[in-house]
Amino acid sequence: MRQVYSILVNNHAGVLSHVAGLFTRRGYNIESIAAGPTEDTTITRIVIVAIGEENELHQIAKQLRKLYDVREVEQISYNQAVTRELVLATIKAPLSRRSEVIQLANAFGAQVINMTDDTVTLEASGNDHKVRTLLKAFEGYGISQMARTGMISLPYDGMPEDWEPIA
Amino acid sequence: MRQVYSILVNNHAGVLSHVAGLFTRRGYNIESIAAGPTEDTTITRIVIVAIGEENELHQIAKQLRKLYDVREVEQISYNQAVTRELVLATIKAPLSRRSEVIQLANAFGAQVINMTDDTVTLEASGNDHKVRTLLKAFEGYGISQMARTGMISLPYDGMPEDWEPIA
Repeated sequence: MRQVYSILVNNHAGVLSHVAGLFTRRGYNIESIAAGPTEDTTITRIVIVAIGEENELHQIAKQLRKLYDVREVEQISYNQAVTRELVLATIKAPLSRRSEVIQLANAFGAQVINMTDDTVTLEASGNDHKVRTLLKAFEGYGISQMARTGMISLPYDGMPEDWEPIA
Repeated sequence: MRQVYSILVNNHAGVLSHVAGLFTRRGYNIESIAAGPTEDTTITRIVIVAIGEENELHQIAKQLRKLYDVREVEQISYNQAVTRELVLATIKAPLSRRSEVIQLANAFGAQVINMTDDTVTLEASGNDHKVRTLLKAFEGYGISQMARTGMISLPYDGMPEDWEPIA
């Protein structure tokens, strides 16, 4: 089971390694982590994606809440939040295939941010599904370098409880 | 001094908290962290932005290299790499100011991803400077919620050593 945690913490040294350490001690690998400032400068939002058994993942949420400097822990449901990730990828694209690669990039709404005789570097953002589809589409060309931010998330405002987004 | 570290690590449980712990033990707060998969599924890229004294920050890079499961540590210079961050922000926008907010969003190339009678939620990406300018522009309206991924980075391919990007 794949679980997304959105954790609000006081912006103090050490809290990030305590949070990450909790997953480690239980032997869970963190698939992605993204931590950055929020609208309140004293608070940092950490979003963690982890894979594990459902009851274990609930246990971790409970223990996170007990940590010093942790203010709020949300387990995010895909239906009630917008989730986005940013990816930078350098695609192998010799001149003969460059226009193909750019066409594909356009189809995904990806931006070209660098170009050489052999490569095209793209910037794209989207939900988990879009990012995976995009990377799969470019796999055939070869991805020589890639960096991903990990997922971030904000709850949808003003949506009924049972609302399901189309994308 | 603000320093960006791009760290390639083996994708093992625990390495992230060891890396974060190194900054903590020296009393440095991490401004942002982003960790996600790379082109090689056994390797994760962690990008950390930290603030501190120059010689201390060099010391940390040295010690990071000694950590088990750390494969590569790069201290990133802005001139030789593309750096990007993703931000989601919910802006306070009553109906009377909605079109103003959308116009401003368009000027920054930001996408509208949700809207209520009182708010507009935006998705935007860019380098550090662009993200800061954008957030400053929307401050006057009020930002009710915000999530940021932290910065990620890829080296520019095929650029001369002394090349300086325009943006």
